[in-house]
Amino acid sequence: MAELHLLSPRGFVASGVYAGIKTRQTPDVGLLLAAAPATAAACFTTNKVFAAPVKVGREHVKGGKLRGVVVNSGNANACTGRQGEADALRMCEVAASVAKCDCRARDILPSSTGIIGHLLPMDRIERGIAEAGLNLGSSREHALLFGDAILTTDTRRKTAEATVKLGRQTVTLAGICKGAGMIGPRMSTAAPHATMLAYLTTDAAAPAPVLKRLLQNAADASFNAVTIDDHTSTNDTAVLLASGASGAKLSTPAAAKKFAAALDEICQSLAYQIAKDGEGATKVVVVTVRQAKTVEHARAMARAVANSPLVKCAMNGNDPNWGRIVSAAGLAGVPFDPDKATLTLQGTVVFDRGTPLPFDGATVSDALKAAEVQVDLTCKLGKADATVWTCDLSKDYVTINADYHT
Amino acid sequence: MAELHLLSPRGFVASGVYAGIKTRQTPDVGLLLAAAPATAAACFTTNKVFAAPVKVGREHVKGGKLRGVVVNSGNANACTGRQGEADALRMCEVAASVAKCDCRARDILPSSTGIIGHLLPMDRIERGIAEAGLNLGSSREHALLFGDAILTTDTRRKTAEATVKLGRQTVTLAGICKGAGMIGPRMSTAAPHATMLAYLTTDAAAPAPVLKRLLQNAADASFNAVTIDDHTSTNDTAVLLASGASGAKLSTPAAAKKFAAALDEICQSLAYQIAKDGEGATKVVVVTVRQAKTVEHARAMARAVANSPLVKCAMNGNDPNWGRIVSAAGLAGVPFDPDKATLTLQGTVVFDRGTPLPFDGATVSDALKAAEVQVDLTCKLGKADATVWTCDLSKDYVTINADYHT
Repeated sequence: MAELHLLSPRGFVASGVYAGIKTRQTPDVGLLLAAAPATAAACFTTNKVFAAPVKVGREHVKGGKLRGVVVNSGNANACTGRQGEADALRMCEVAASVAKCDCRARDILPSSTGIIGHLLPMDRIERGIAEAGLNLGSSREHALLFGDAILTTDTRRKTAEATVKLGRQTVTLAGICKGAGMIGPRMSTAAPHATMLAYLTTDAAAPAPVLKRLLQNAADASFNAVTIDDHTSTNDTAVLLASGASGAKLSTPAAAKKFAAALDEICQSLAYQIAKDGEGATKVVVVTVRQAKTVEHARAMARAVANSPLVKCAMNGNDPNWGRIVSAAGLAGVPFDPDKATLTLQGTVVFDRGTPLPFDGATVSDALKAAEVQVDLTCKLGKADATVWTCDLSKDYVTINADYHT
Repeated sequence: MAELHLLSPRGFVASGVYAGIKTRQTPDVGLLLAAAPATAAACFTTNKVFAAPVKVGREHVKGGKLRGVVVNSGNANACTGRQGEADALRMCEVAASVAKCDCRARDILPSSTGIIGHLLPMDRIERGIAEAGLNLGSSREHALLFGDAILTTDTRRKTAEATVKLGRQTVTLAGICKGAGMIGPRMSTAAPHATMLAYLTTDAAAPAPVLKRLLQNAADASFNAVTIDDHTSTNDTAVLLASGASGAKLSTPAAAKKFAAALDEICQSLAYQIAKDGEGATKVVVVTVRQAKTVEHARAMARAVANSPLVKCAMNGNDPNWGRIVSAAGLAGVPFDPDKATLTLQGTVVFDRGTPLPFDGATVSDALKAAEVQVDLTCKLGKADATVWTCDLSKDYVTINADYHT
């Protein structure tokens, strides 16, 4: 089987071109189009400050149908007022016009990522979209160029694919995403407004409300469970386009369940890749909270641990300073009782029911040097588990973010 | 007038000795005693994981009376189970016995600060308290030694004093505090449990409920409004002891108001000093949110801005990347409308009612090099203001916290 990519699900074309927005000469304008109107669902940032493309995008996805996505990197088109809105809409218009299909601006979802507070250089953007329209295709190369067009401080591509058999048909799912900094998505399809960007394609057919529910569930256990710096962006967006070109429908609960599992798998893989590529990251830290009262409690505690700069610095220094982990769980504002809790650090139980356990510091410190560190906190308060992915906090994170703008 | 210090309010003695708990040979056990039972109020961390001395302290301060405080640095006595509790209580017993007064263990409030998850070296602690008992005095030197005994990663002493005329009497207030990392206090007298430590003395006389209310109000606008890393500690504690030795009572609303203003001033000075001495800090960042709907909203937004690693790194790099500030306010989860908001960065308006304003990047960047940076966000949603103090996030913060334990 050939290697899968974003355009493996039948019915999609894409392209990515360099339009001169980013300093680095890599693609910065991308176009992803469905051959026919696709069923669509999207979730967006819940930040009260949301970018112009988010405002336009939530309107355009309302009907549950989209023809495609137009995106630029290097400029977030956020905090740009009415001109920003007009510009986001104009991106859709130009995209629709180059799509060479019976397609209107409102069938296109726009996305932008990059610096906040600067107007888009619309002349370059428009020329870029026009050029992207001339370069559309469905090869692996096309998928990669589109993917590159959404990258900012990312150091690598993030892609995930899956196939699933529904009856006699094989359905393909694929996704790409970007994100390395300003990562603390809290996306919702309900209050539709996430600078994590994720684009998901599938050739399954499903009604929009079903897609919406599946996307929200998948996002909650993936994109919304990854944090680099807990700074929920103005632009976070995840879009799922279903072309239906496989002919397979999610018509039975079993089929929907199978599809959902594959979607979850892809989204979690992408979320993990974001943590791995976190700005300045030297390792992934997987924080799992078990046996909390509710999933919300488990997520809140896992997130508090994953967001603690003290925990993240300790991880950077391979320092088994576990008190920071337990105390971070305690500050999450949800029920937690250290006298019932057990903390396991990379396989070693360091704290059990209120009491520190003796362990060999050097051995655990060595274990923390791994590329992936497991932090497991068992609460013994209920049956709910949650996992949050993050990375360590390094000097490089500071360097990257002290110099981003100037 | 001689320089004021913690023991300037009449009726207190103190000492600080090196007992071998900290690696650095500076005082690590301290004793602060009132000559007669003092009216007392305390507020403690609201972290669900609170240290043994916090558990013991909240019991001991319940009656509104205390004879003194015993404290050690270098070990937090947190996550130490029943042995930890017994040890905290034992500290009080030994302190009471060396106090040479009719004083019981429950008249002493214990505090500890340092690493979490290690049992106190009780032999050294007990010897230290005994030695501290032999060295009590009320000179400036004694005040400084006690103050030094509470320091951990602090690079300097933090002290504040005030006098206020109540009728014909002069009342003196003084305070010391420590804290440079694991700073995100959310202290409460209600759920009495804060590793910020603050000790406040006064020779005014006031009923315990009045002291409690005044301390909570002062803490909310000071200690609870400073954040280095938003990691609410297991040990945060602020204690106010009123000896009454001045003879002045807070018997009129006017007198109470005057006293409250002086207390607020001291606490805010101490909080500012904590921000200034934040681990790795090169500057203080004063975040003021104006015209929010409620004080709680204003505080939540100011705190979200002050806690954003992206904002803090930008401050470190003198980078006027203001989009990070506006977006941080938007993620606080309280009402905020960028289309009504104005952001002023060190005196320059950079964003006004949804629209970015042109400014000279180099000039604003230069202005950000100051030792104190003012971030002012006006919401135009109401009449409530709040200020939160923080510092920038530097590579040194990472160095300090990657290597704390090992």
